[in-house]
Amino acid sequence: MIDLRSDTVTKPTKEMRQAAFDAIVGDDVYIEDPTILELEALAAKKLGKDAAMFVPSGTQGNQIAVLTHCVSGQEVILEADSHIYFYEGGTIAAFAGVQPRTLKGNHGAMNPLEVEAAIRVDDIHQPETGLICLENTHNRAGGAIVPLENMKEIYEIAKKHNLPVHLDGARLFNASVATGISVEEYASYTDTIQFCLSKGLGAPVGSIIAGTKEFIVKARKWRKRLGGGLRQAGIIAAPGLVALNKMVDRLADDHEKAAILASGLGSVKGLEIENKVDTNIVLVNTKEAGIFADQFIEKLKEEEILAVAFGPYTVRFTTHYDVTNQEIKQVLEKISKLI
Amino acid sequence: MIDLRSDTVTKPTKEMRQAAFDAIVGDDVYIEDPTILELEALAAKKLGKDAAMFVPSGTQGNQIAVLTHCVSGQEVILEADSHIYFYEGGTIAAFAGVQPRTLKGNHGAMNPLEVEAAIRVDDIHQPETGLICLENTHNRAGGAIVPLENMKEIYEIAKKHNLPVHLDGARLFNASVATGISVEEYASYTDTIQFCLSKGLGAPVGSIIAGTKEFIVKARKWRKRLGGGLRQAGIIAAPGLVALNKMVDRLADDHEKAAILASGLGSVKGLEIENKVDTNIVLVNTKEAGIFADQFIEKLKEEEILAVAFGPYTVRFTTHYDVTNQEIKQVLEKISKLI
Amino acid sequence: MIDLRSDTVTKPTKEMRQAAFDAIVGDDVYIEDPTILELEALAAKKLGKDAAMFVPSGTQGNQIAVLTHCVSGQEVILEADSHIYFYEGGTIAAFAGVQPRTLKGNHGAMNPLEVEAAIRVDDIHQPETGLICLENTHNRAGGAIVPLENMKEIYEIAKKHNLPVHLDGARLFNASVATGISVEEYASYTDTIQFCLSKGLGAPVGSIIAGTKEFIVKARKWRKRLGGGLRQAGIIAAPGLVALNKMVDRLADDHEKAAILASGLGSVKGLEIENKVDTNIVLVNTKEAGIFADQFIEKLKEEEILAVAFGPYTVRFTTHYDVTNQEIKQVLEKISKLI
Amino acid sequence: MIDLRSDTVTKPTKEMRQAAFDAIVGDDVYIEDPTILELEALAAKKLGKDAAMFVPSGTQGNQIAVLTHCVSGQEVILEADSHIYFYEGGTIAAFAGVQPRTLKGNHGAMNPLEVEAAIRVDDIHQPETGLICLENTHNRAGGAIVPLENMKEIYEIAKKHNLPVHLDGARLFNASVATGISVEEYASYTDTIQFCLSKGLGAPVGSIIAGTKEFIVKARKWRKRLGGGLRQAGIIAAPGLVALNKMVDRLADDHEKAAILASGLGSVKGLEIENKVDTNIVLVNTKEAGIFADQFIEKLKEEEILAVAFGPYTVRFTTHYDVTNQEIKQVLEKISKLI
Repeated sequence: MIDLRSDTVTKPTKEMRQAAFDAIVGDDVYIEDPTILELEALAAKKLGKDAAMFVPSGTQGNQIAVLTHCVSGQEVILEADSHIYFYEGGTIAAFAGVQPRTLKGNHGAMNPLEVEAAIRVDDIHQPETGLICLENTHNRAGGAIVPLENMKEIYEIAKKHNLPVHLDGARLFNASVATGISVEEYASYTDTIQFCLSKGLGAPVGSIIAGTKEFIVKARKWRKRLGGGLRQAGIIAAPGLVALNKMVDRLADDHEKAAILASGLGSVKGLEIENKVDTNIVLVNTKEAGIFADQFIEKLKEEEILAVAFGPYTVRFTTHYDVTNQEIKQVLEKISKLI
Repeated sequence: MIDLRSDTVTKPTKEMRQAAFDAIVGDDVYIEDPTILELEALAAKKLGKDAAMFVPSGTQGNQIAVLTHCVSGQEVILEADSHIYFYEGGTIAAFAGVQPRTLKGNHGAMNPLEVEAAIRVDDIHQPETGLICLENTHNRAGGAIVPLENMKEIYEIAKKHNLPVHLDGARLFNASVATGISVEEYASYTDTIQFCLSKGLGAPVGSIIAGTKEFIVKARKWRKRLGGGLRQAGIIAAPGLVALNKMVDRLADDHEKAAILASGLGSVKGLEIENKVDTNIVLVNTKEAGIFADQFIEKLKEEEILAVAFGPYTVRFTTHYDVTNQEIKQVLEKISKLI
Repeated sequence: MIDLRSDTVTKPTKEMRQAAFDAIVGDDVYIEDPTILELEALAAKKLGKDAAMFVPSGTQGNQIAVLTHCVSGQEVILEADSHIYFYEGGTIAAFAGVQPRTLKGNHGAMNPLEVEAAIRVDDIHQPETGLICLENTHNRAGGAIVPLENMKEIYEIAKKHNLPVHLDGARLFNASVATGISVEEYASYTDTIQFCLSKGLGAPVGSIIAGTKEFIVKARKWRKRLGGGLRQAGIIAAPGLVALNKMVDRLADDHEKAAILASGLGSVKGLEIENKVDTNIVLVNTKEAGIFADQFIEKLKEEEILAVAFGPYTVRFTTHYDVTNQEIKQVLEKISKLI
Repeated sequence: MIDLRSDTVTKPTKEMRQAAFDAIVGDDVYIEDPTILELEALAAKKLGKDAAMFVPSGTQGNQIAVLTHCVSGQEVILEADSHIYFYEGGTIAAFAGVQPRTLKGNHGAMNPLEVEAAIRVDDIHQPETGLICLENTHNRAGGAIVPLENMKEIYEIAKKHNLPVHLDGARLFNASVATGISVEEYASYTDTIQFCLSKGLGAPVGSIIAGTKEFIVKARKWRKRLGGGLRQAGIIAAPGLVALNKMVDRLADDHEKAAILASGLGSVKGLEIENKVDTNIVLVNTKEAGIFADQFIEKLKEEEILAVAFGPYTVRFTTHYDVTNQEIKQVLEKISKLI
């Protein structure tokens, strides 16, 4: 199987496994796991934030941000196709009691003017705006890079209105590698940020949430409530350290593989590339080929290729560490024959 | 003051006051208030539903519908400018724990194809769709009448997907009087419906929520939780009965007044009518006149005219029982001079 | 029927109906109803608080207090049989997301030492204590008066720990009339307070919630979310004003009727009075008579007497304005024959 | 340091680390991690349940049970000192919107008659009972074993009332090893059950939740919402398998160490053993020694012994794999000198 469903499917490298084997551990609920502490310190430093905390998943990191920044009855401004809104089970409403206020973005970037217009006025009928969320790279926009300038403008609007900003940076390192802008610079335009160790960076489990020290103190309690307070978590932090230290630069390879894939698929008659392919995601439209995404995916499966549907005619391919250039070539050959 | 802010400002008629004075009452928490029971039976009959329940406000009626139809973690499809989403304090998230899924409508009517596309698929990342909400007439679309055919199409999609439909019919009687279509016919394309006694119908307090008997049994408990279980509520149901029996047909006068107002304001240079003026609401755009809505409203106040802002350049005027044709004429004269 | 189920069944007096008929009204969502404003000012003054707000029910008043004082994830200390915990549908958890921490009281009064011990420590596993709730008179303790000294001690503990106190004073006027201690004095040992106009005071609908101005501003928004934002609410505030001005002193009559009832029932072989009968509630135990409360109530119904069950062998009788001394006598005669 | 704070502090054995190193992994969000699947199958089999699911913590397992069994507005009956109520941050209210109904138990066991009496009746004022939770062994009752017969009686009451039962069996294997009753037999008197791999069993991270297949399907979605959907989770499931296969029988050693500790401490003048010491927990009361628990713990720390406070005068010592008989002896010697 050539698995292009997601970069979450990457398996830990041997070095990561060795790191897990060797990890010095403690009880992280007591904040005593040295490997967790090392990972959190490294992550905070890279992001230029005061403090960071390990969480078992990106979804938990994002939900913790919403729970910590907001109270029930508030509203969160976020992009209409953002992961927090689209793929997290309606949890910001279910647990935090906050209402999403969605804006349709352009390649994942919300229009700052629309963001400002969406901030609620002081009116007894209206919820109070409590948070603005960004996503970079933007998954459903096809791994699109949200321009730094766009983040800056929205951040400044937020500060003007005394609102916090959270960045779902699950794949922020992809943006950073592709643009050459450091994650620290990206992070300077958000109050809190979540990024995943388990996607392109290849760690088996886990994400990081970072912000001020005060934020992390509060976040720690919400993590406990969500059941994310782990014990000898160094076992999974150790591979996370390897991910952060060794796997960042190689994301460029994933982007190159995606570019090759997009270029090849774009030239297949009936298929159309929907996104700009900024990073490691390719969105292919199958409409002209007269085949639904689900059907196309079934056919790919028979050819031992895995992908996921993103819409009735949209198929997402994601490149990652565990897929080789050779396999990308095979995928192109097989799909050319298929259509 | 000529108060065109809302039809909620109407004061009870003498007949309503007399009805309150004479009302036979009991304890409605024990379901023993005869006047409440009479009002609920009449409302259910008019709507062609099995059962109805008095609630102290339209907001409470709508929230009860969401709480009764849904469970936490679900999603509600509704129009992006609908009252439930825009003007009810984010309560569907805060209390029911459900996430709104908003679609931009056309004069208040959602595109049935978009509604169907917005229904979530069975996927562990996604909330389950739990309810579709409609609004007719649609307040922020300027009292726009949602066509019966549109309601029917959406209702059929809902049934195909085993989803309930709730209608925020706060001003449904306005739609009915304007189109000649009975409220019963409108109500046949929704499972539950809320309408207000206290807007154009002129009652001092209260709304009705209607549906199946089973729905109302459950709804009664949510009403209690929301603090809407009243005691000798016949005192306010009695004016409500007058409203339902005597004040429906006269809504045509409100529509006529709105038409006159719109026609007059539309001919004022610098002002533009934004909506179709189907019923008793006129949305005026002040942009060409180079004045913000808030500023315009301040100036109107000096002229003893009250209106409300609906956007940076949008002012809403609402006609109702307590504003006369003569006053509409005065408003036009004063505004002509103002601009 | 002689209805001793609750003092909520009292019907509005003629004077109250006349007041409703004559009431000067406005739209209370716009804070423009003069009668509402008059009632709120009077209530605030009587309680010695800065501000007060009309709410349609005592349950809504209590829930608003919890929603305004607390945030999700906190804990509320309250008596194990208190109305907020026992009879409000689990709403403090459902809407406010707070966990009740219950303490068994003595005649409705919690032990201050136990209250202090129940305040949570700073620990990642534990919710934060957010509020202490009192109830006076205490319904399930049989209308028991919580001593002023007890309130004072708990209030001082609360202040020591920077915690707010809310008093469910649905029947506080009963306590005041029975002890001669002013409601203002009682209210001085709580930050916020709710009392009912619709119980012993005889108004058809409504309660008051009072506290600081800042509290009421926030409370107003939660009232809107709960659907308690009414329009020409003066119609029901007017009877409420009569209740507050004319019906307080007469509560002594209700207490006397309860004393007579208790004395009589206590001498019936097989019946035992469970409570101290401080005010207008009598709790009768039927165990020795070998009859369940539900069965006893059925038998009473055949004799045209209404009461409610408070436990398997506990029956509650409540005296009020609409039950006469003559009727109390009849009740005693009928029950003596029954047993 | 001799760490007797909790059995959660145990560090993974070399065999566990090797298992992590060797683990065959996949993406568990796609239900494709073979090691997770193996662990879940083994756990389900041991418990005699249809299905099981790995969760990152016991708290998450318990919260998933409540979220899956209940809906907002319901009530959960559970022991007044149970972990779910006392140590999980008020989360059943915050996330599930359910109200705890607490009963004081006897050595952790609730009285079945009181459980039945606490089930709510059909009444508009009352929440509906949605779930009964048990805890075995019971942590705050000092690792007390809840008798099988007690569980059976409560389970039968639950079934009579069509209520589900959940068992917080974080330390159920301790009960099983101590009594010789299989975990399967214990599990036969509950619908769902959570147990921890990371306490006495010594795994670094994780717990299991088990029940019917239908339950686990729903539970999986709540796990995702809580952020417990992990990727290559086999890395932590592999040590969990070792825990389940190799570390159960040795719990008897922990119990023996606790017995020795209790016997020794009980003979120290001024210290009193509060609990029956059924398993691996010893609760020591310091009141007669005239020292607060917090002070005593500070003194112990100076002697390189760690324990935790369970009350103003109560100190908990927990024995586990990483504390030797020799160390227990040292603890006794040092404490004898201290007091």
